Amino acid sequence: MQPTVDFPRHLVATAGLSTADVGRLLAEAERLREAPPKDVRTLLDGAIVATLFFQPSTRTRLGFEAAALRLGARVTGFADPSTSRSVDYIGESLEDTARVVSELSDALVLRHYVTGAARRAAQAAVCPVVNGGDGSNEHPTQALSDVWTMTRHLGGLSGAVVALVGDPGTRVLRSLVHLLARLEVKRLLFLVPPAAPLIMGGIDAVTHTTLPADLAAVLEDSGTAYEFRSDVTELLAEADVVEMMPIDVPSLETQPSALSSHVYVTPEPYRITAAKIRAVGSRALILHPGPRKDELHPDVETTPGGLYFEQVKDSLYLRMAVLTQLVTHR
Amino acid sequence: MQPTVDFPRHLVATAGLSTADVGRLLAEAERLREAPPKDVRTLLDGAIVATLFFQPSTRTRLGFEAAALRLGARVTGFADPSTSRSVDYIGESLEDTARVVSELSDALVLRHYVTGAARRAAQAAVCPVVNGGDGSNEHPTQALSDVWTMTRHLGGLSGAVVALVGDPGTRVLRSLVHLLARLEVKRLLFLVPPAAPLIMGGIDAVTHTTLPADLAAVLEDSGTAYEFRSDVTELLAEADVVEMMPIDVPSLETQPSALSSHVYVTPEPYRITAAKIRAVGSRALILHPGPRKDELHPDVETTPGGLYFEQVKDSLYLRMAVLTQLVTHR
Amino acid sequence: MQPTVDFPRHLVATAGLSTADVGRLLAEAERLREAPPKDVRTLLDGAIVATLFFQPSTRTRLGFEAAALRLGARVTGFADPSTSRSVDYIGESLEDTARVVSELSDALVLRHYVTGAARRAAQAAVCPVVNGGDGSNEHPTQALSDVWTMTRHLGGLSGAVVALVGDPGTRVLRSLVHLLARLEVKRLLFLVPPAAPLIMGGIDAVTHTTLPADLAAVLEDSGTAYEFRSDVTELLAEADVVEMMPIDVPSLETQPSALSSHVYVTPEPYRITAAKIRAVGSRALILHPGPRKDELHPDVETTPGGLYFEQVKDSLYLRMAVLTQLVTHR
Repeated sequence: MQPTVDFPRHLVATAGLSTADVGRLLAEAERLREAPPKDVRTLLDGAIVATLFFQPSTRTRLGFEAAALRLGARVTGFADPSTSRSVDYIGESLEDTARVVSELSDALVLRHYVTGAARRAAQAAVCPVVNGGDGSNEHPTQALSDVWTMTRHLGGLSGAVVALVGDPGTRVLRSLVHLLARLEVKRLLFLVPPAAPLIMGGIDAVTHTTLPADLAAVLEDSGTAYEFRSDVTELLAEADVVEMMPIDVPSLETQPSALSSHVYVTPEPYRITAAKIRAVGSRALILHPGPRKDELHPDVETTPGGLYFEQVKDSLYLRMAVLTQLVTHR
Repeated sequence: MQPTVDFPRHLVATAGLSTADVGRLLAEAERLREAPPKDVRTLLDGAIVATLFFQPSTRTRLGFEAAALRLGARVTGFADPSTSRSVDYIGESLEDTARVVSELSDALVLRHYVTGAARRAAQAAVCPVVNGGDGSNEHPTQALSDVWTMTRHLGGLSGAVVALVGDPGTRVLRSLVHLLARLEVKRLLFLVPPAAPLIMGGIDAVTHTTLPADLAAVLEDSGTAYEFRSDVTELLAEADVVEMMPIDVPSLETQPSALSSHVYVTPEPYRITAAKIRAVGSRALILHPGPRKDELHPDVETTPGGLYFEQVKDSLYLRMAVLTQLVTHR
Repeated sequence: MQPTVDFPRHLVATAGLSTADVGRLLAEAERLREAPPKDVRTLLDGAIVATLFFQPSTRTRLGFEAAALRLGARVTGFADPSTSRSVDYIGESLEDTARVVSELSDALVLRHYVTGAARRAAQAAVCPVVNGGDGSNEHPTQALSDVWTMTRHLGGLSGAVVALVGDPGTRVLRSLVHLLARLEVKRLLFLVPPAAPLIMGGIDAVTHTTLPADLAAVLEDSGTAYEFRSDVTELLAEADVVEMMPIDVPSLETQPSALSSHVYVTPEPYRITAAKIRAVGSRALILHPGPRKDELHPDVETTPGGLYFEQVKDSLYLRMAVLTQLVTHR
């Protein structure tokens, strides 16, 4: 009964993608970027893409909806699961919801706070499923898009030094590590914030120097060198690319209703500003999957490497590429 | 001032449909199912369907949106009334909201917790209104779709024994009874859960053997025989079709914000599993309007009569049929 | 870095519009009203309009969505900011949200409880921004639409007496005053409810006879005469147009979650009914931007001057005109 969930039937994880798959998606994104809009406007004519979002989203949901619409597809779905039957007195199972909506649609884009939700949905659905972020697992289209932005600017990642700032157990960074492990980068640099108990001992006194065991295994299996640093200025001096993340984030496995905002000032070792970039003469590309708090100062957009909004534009074409691959190859 | 609200101007209830109306809708659904998608894709070109949902929904809202989009219509509306002016400090009346949105649209699909809301909206609107479920009154498109699924599999309902499990005062069953009363079924069998005070006396000790007075009158007027049973196994043995419903449901006239989920285990007399079906050698069709809790085990989908997801696909065509009838015959 | 935000790049305020701009928009609305629907259906083919609504809305959001769809554009966005990253633990800035969505879209329509939000979004975005109401500042499309409804019925506003009921510091009335100041009306009449402390002294005992200083300056600079009245019957007797507003409204700068509905009976001096209209033999047009509470009795729609729902239809064409002007002149 259990269908395979590998690309190009679904896109659940970068962990399941071959290097050829990645190349094909980036080439398709490039092709869609270069094509006149009117040539792509009917590629998915008559198709329906359903966005099922169990967590808040701006870029991913609106990005997939815009991607679908620019391809001529149409959109339904929900941005708030409390408008569906998933969280009312019935509490329909994820599998039933995915299957039901897949009977009405040609592709599902799912975001969920449960790790593994996208794979479960893909196993239940009768149409392609794209993972728009599931718990602490993966967020493959964001990572693919960021890798595409990097490669377009650097002419490839082979031999590059790529720095990742933030908790490597969060889904964008996990998806990125899986991708970077097969792209022959020279070295990954991690700047990992200490966990809460260590912060209380004084943030400057400690750095984390471990990765989740599965990610460490992926890097070791692929022969990818990696090291740890303790301040963004080191990354700006050494790296070709720095991908930033917010430091103070809750578990992405938390139900959205249990979360609230609070005041937090990012410690200096984890903040990038235009002044820091100029101080070390850095030419590194500065990326951030967004949204940001104060870890990436808006003045970074005034520097040549600041690609924060260009990433958004790129993600539109990458998501169009994913939808065309999944829907037209059904 | 009060326009007539009969089909085909609106679809508020199955109670107002003639047998010819029902036949026309099912035939149109069949025609749309058989037509190549590209032939139906422009039937409602340029039309706008607005979905106004005051209660949560997955199948009905996304189903009507998908139906509209597959016909070339476009969609606006709200899934959460708190995003509209209906529930803020103004609290716009249902009549004003329906009229206002009808000035902007070519059809409204309304779900509301107030019994009679769809008729009120139809009287106020200047475009067709479809009832997507109103309080404890009716849910006509779900019942029409389920009747279509039954007739397609049985080659008609004349002479059939149809069993209905659940509170016959809820809207899907009410709409079904109105339809079945005019389709010359041989007999209706009801399995009615006891109301809360009786449950405390022990669920096995009692069965309900009454219908709401208006439904009893409909069945008697049409000469439709009906009986009561006390366990699904009796239904599986006797019936050609068993339509299931959840047992533990709140009043559908409750404001959604006042409801919450809770643990409930459906008593065995009201649960269907593949094992029970095999035990009696039943060939009955098993339907459920969804969403389900534990009263319909997922293993029923592995039996020949398990139509839980086929119903969803059918409902898409039925809803397309309703929209084409209402919008093109304006 | 700061782009100009003047029309026709954006539509943030009526305060920034020239008389020629106003004329062009109303003429375009008229043209769109008269054109066969199929001639306008592809005017914005391939464009995406994003609706970003931080406050509840029925007419404005659904109206802009319907307007976009009738022009062949497609729609994404959010009706509830808690589904976006604007109000979660990150709390993305308005500027970042506007810029990000503008990278994906061809126009943004924004409603926000912060005064000045539309201008800030326009400065951040890389596509046109339309103000759908910002705090206590402006709601330009509602005012433009209402002025169009007035001029269509009166053949122009030159020499007309226009009465405005309600707090002149609220956004619809502010936008209207800016427009009316340049349309050579003969006189504006204001009926201003007393503020809360005065109400406690007895509502009949007082009338407000002051305007916000900036609006008074606008009227004086343009040489527009204005006076105050204390009862709608005076307005019905004197005015060619009476634009109504609810009396008991909270500050529109309040976060929606902090608001709730409550019982309120509008005092008679601020209520219009058909009986009052007939009593003075008034032929005044009666407008209201909606939604209404009890200040405008539904029986007013039965009088020749009652234009409450016609305004909604008009607003659709006016919003279509705004979108065509902004998107096709990018």
